[in-house]
Amino acid sequence: MASAQLPPKYGKCFVCSMVLNMLLIMCLFVGHTKGKPGWSMRAAMEAEAVASESCSGHGRAYLDGLLVDGKPVCECNTCFGGPDCSQFSPDCPADVDSGDPLFLEPFWMQNAASSALLVSGWHRMSYSYADDSTISEELVKHIRKLHSIVGNAVTEGRFIVFGTGSTQLLNAAVHSLALTNSSSRAVVVTTKPFYPVNPVPNLRVFLFFNSVTMIAIIVKNLIQDAKRTQIGYEVSELESISSLTKQYDNMANTQAYKSQTDFFRSLDYNFVGDTSLFKNATDGNANFIEFVTSPNNPDGLLKKAVLEGPHAKAINDHVYLWPHYTAIPAPADEDVMIFSLSKLTGHAGSRFGWALIKDEAVYQAMSAYASQISLGVSHDTQLVALKLIKFVAQGKGEIFDFGFKTMRNRWEILGKTLSVSSRFSIQEIEPQYCSFYQKVREPSPAYGWFKCEREEDEDCYAVLRAAGIITRQGTRFGADSRYVRLSLIKTQDDFDLLIRKLTILVSEED
Amino acid sequence: MASAQLPPKYGKCFVCSMVLNMLLIMCLFVGHTKGKPGWSMRAAMEAEAVASESCSGHGRAYLDGLLVDGKPVCECNTCFGGPDCSQFSPDCPADVDSGDPLFLEPFWMQNAASSALLVSGWHRMSYSYADDSTISEELVKHIRKLHSIVGNAVTEGRFIVFGTGSTQLLNAAVHSLALTNSSSRAVVVTTKPFYPVNPVPNLRVFLFFNSVTMIAIIVKNLIQDAKRTQIGYEVSELESISSLTKQYDNMANTQAYKSQTDFFRSLDYNFVGDTSLFKNATDGNANFIEFVTSPNNPDGLLKKAVLEGPHAKAINDHVYLWPHYTAIPAPADEDVMIFSLSKLTGHAGSRFGWALIKDEAVYQAMSAYASQISLGVSHDTQLVALKLIKFVAQGKGEIFDFGFKTMRNRWEILGKTLSVSSRFSIQEIEPQYCSFYQKVREPSPAYGWFKCEREEDEDCYAVLRAAGIITRQGTRFGADSRYVRLSLIKTQDDFDLLIRKLTILVSEED
Repeated sequence: MASAQLPPKYGKCFVCSMVLNMLLIMCLFVGHTKGKPGWSMRAAMEAEAVASESCSGHGRAYLDGLLVDGKPVCECNTCFGGPDCSQFSPDCPADVDSGDPLFLEPFWMQNAASSALLVSGWHRMSYSYADDSTISEELVKHIRKLHSIVGNAVTEGRFIVFGTGSTQLLNAAVHSLALTNSSSRAVVVTTKPFYPVNPVPNLRVFLFFNSVTMIAIIVKNLIQDAKRTQIGYEVSELESISSLTKQYDNMANTQAYKSQTDFFRSLDYNFVGDTSLFKNATDGNANFIEFVTSPNNPDGLLKKAVLEGPHAKAINDHVYLWPHYTAIPAPADEDVMIFSLSKLTGHAGSRFGWALIKDEAVYQAMSAYASQISLGVSHDTQLVALKLIKFVAQGKGEIFDFGFKTMRNRWEILGKTLSVSSRFSIQEIEPQYCSFYQKVREPSPAYGWFKCEREEDEDCYAVLRAAGIITRQGTRFGADSRYVRLSLIKTQDDFDLLIRKLTILVSEED
Repeated sequence: MASAQLPPKYGKCFVCSMVLNMLLIMCLFVGHTKGKPGWSMRAAMEAEAVASESCSGHGRAYLDGLLVDGKPVCECNTCFGGPDCSQFSPDCPADVDSGDPLFLEPFWMQNAASSALLVSGWHRMSYSYADDSTISEELVKHIRKLHSIVGNAVTEGRFIVFGTGSTQLLNAAVHSLALTNSSSRAVVVTTKPFYPVNPVPNLRVFLFFNSVTMIAIIVKNLIQDAKRTQIGYEVSELESISSLTKQYDNMANTQAYKSQTDFFRSLDYNFVGDTSLFKNATDGNANFIEFVTSPNNPDGLLKKAVLEGPHAKAINDHVYLWPHYTAIPAPADEDVMIFSLSKLTGHAGSRFGWALIKDEAVYQAMSAYASQISLGVSHDTQLVALKLIKFVAQGKGEIFDFGFKTMRNRWEILGKTLSVSSRFSIQEIEPQYCSFYQKVREPSPAYGWFKCEREEDEDCYAVLRAAGIITRQGTRFGADSRYVRLSLIKTQDDFDLLIRKLTILVSEED
């Protein structure tokens, strides 16, 4: 039958079919030679294969994770397990201790194509960029653009320094201010509750502890200085600091902190304590460097420097000054301002931060410090930061909408859960006008600053721990043990479990 | 005609054509949905577009470089310019100052597919890895594999610490040894010529200078200690160090070094000077930490620690201990060994190094230090390092063949150029048995340790500078000003220009 003569109309069909054949062959050929990746193909396929592991929505596989039988292994969220992270352990405690900003992970999964980055094997192998610096000029440009879009900081007339996370920059800033301020020793202070000690260590920890063993000496010197020069603060005050530092020393001598204490002991600066002790002391001989974290960690409140005068300099830690977490009242305009990728895009693991610096001498000192300590920031990290910040700065604020919506939602749920409790409370943050959203907006802080109100609940950490909730002690922030910090920026699973455990705890109040 | 009846044989053809069409459509469809990148496509295409800029073989474009009219801009090698780097400036000096390991760039361009890496937008956003550490276990595994393949270091029974380049690790090692060694102050020493000062700053610089202003005090203390406790070395020796340190102090007080001097001033350790001064001092009270760079920078010779005894600890800087640069006589087996990606794969810009540590207490202290200073190494950098080291460790030593061939070739050309000179000389390195190549191999060092032999050429740096060659002064390595260091590990263009200028200089000898 197939060999039978075809009716005349099939003649046209045959020609069409042949033409289609040729077109399809061309399509395939062109597709293979143009407009499709060549040498980058393998890397792209590897990344997509790993990303295709769904891990039940309670985990993810990574390109540098373990392989089992050639398949990437799921790394599960806390309290989830099994090969595909589908097994939930109901008795597992809710861990809201660390400030791991994983709430932004789903945002990047939803924007996979815009945030993917292909690094070639010969990417910027040199120590320096084309202009002999260790800083990507493109990244500087996009950071300025980002601040101008968000309106959270003035970048005009500011120099930019990069650091391996805000950690290194805070350290660099203290050193540089101590050096450029004067030749005499600087005293580092901050206002309670502040963020000094962190199991994932942080510079403020470091400042805090590195000086602990020296505080006694310093305070003794200050007392002598005070006696000699009458520099304005009372000897009795200093003696009270002396007893305060004893307390820190005891902390430092516990096993957990011992190693931290012994780290650096700088001759240039010393962490002494709460600003309130020094309010009237800044017209004296000592130089003061004040840490201002705004919005503050742990309580989320916007802060200003307390100390004034020619001998007082402030380091403004603005890592939380993004629409996710706070209203932006106006662009910050201080002399030393520090930001990080970690709390902006959620990429804590990339260790990237930047500082906006007004004074050229401080900028020079900080740059030199950053170069000195590690020859600058990894070029791969700078490339990642550029990709992410470019995306954030060219969009319509999608990440801020996502961030605010998520954090606002969590804050409302936490508030609702605690609204029926007389035993526990959290901080109040007033709605405030936000220049980014151009309206008054409700609070959405990164942390709950949680208080145990009952007289017998003196150790709030222990109360929550017994209820299966791991928090961070208030004493770590220089506050009372009735306070703990709840991290609200971890995964949705972490937050859901916190609420589940809190609901049970509150329901047992009577 | 087209409507005319087709002969019977076309019937079969028509069927074939239709079947082919269906197959081709399936091919196209399947191709688009499976086996080809989806969300990673855009990143892959961007990277390939940038890489397709050839820049005449005298430069390259980068993904984070400037764009002009939407086209990536070529970044040219020294002395080349123009939009495509094709313009050579013959009067431009040969710059062989820095140790930028760009000789390996062509290797990675040749292995583009094997070294490309696609980073997803949600890659390891957390501060920590699955095991709560800040270190990729996969990377640790492949570093061990690499050392076992190359046979340049024993990794069994060793802990591994990561750092932001070897810089941070050397610093961490000094701190940790100073802490774990004893409660008293440690003295840091090394043997001339050593690698202390670097315009691209390095820890050894840092150690050197940070302590400069304190050396006078320390030496005074040592003199007093010596007088009091008779710890073995002569007061006269210490007084000679005192005058040595004066010289350093003068250096430090010049504008260029001033800022470095003022950086850290640690109470724990102090760089004093050449090991020879302390050879008999290690049974005393002081703790000694000796830097051993092997192969040595600048002269490429294999070195061992000089100081012995219970109070002497060595930090072995093995960043050049790879078959590119040296014969590997046997696996290094010291207590503290430091390596870097920079000199292994040429990725200086990635800032990644690792240390192999025998003693658990030292390892703990170093890990804590690395965490403390910057919460560990960027996860993006660790991913890049994994990709590169995995490739190096799974191949058949291709990178070592490429590296050795290149460096050997350069060394031969340099030797030939200088063979007709009586005015200039370079160091001699004996052929040596290499366990990696399993044969005696000729030298291929990273640097030429270059000497001006004529009495009047006291300032060798100036002699070469006048001939259009920028080197690094011998005085920077604690040596005589008759010596300079020539970097042989930069681009082929840099090396070619060096030889061109040297040839002219040598030809003018008579």
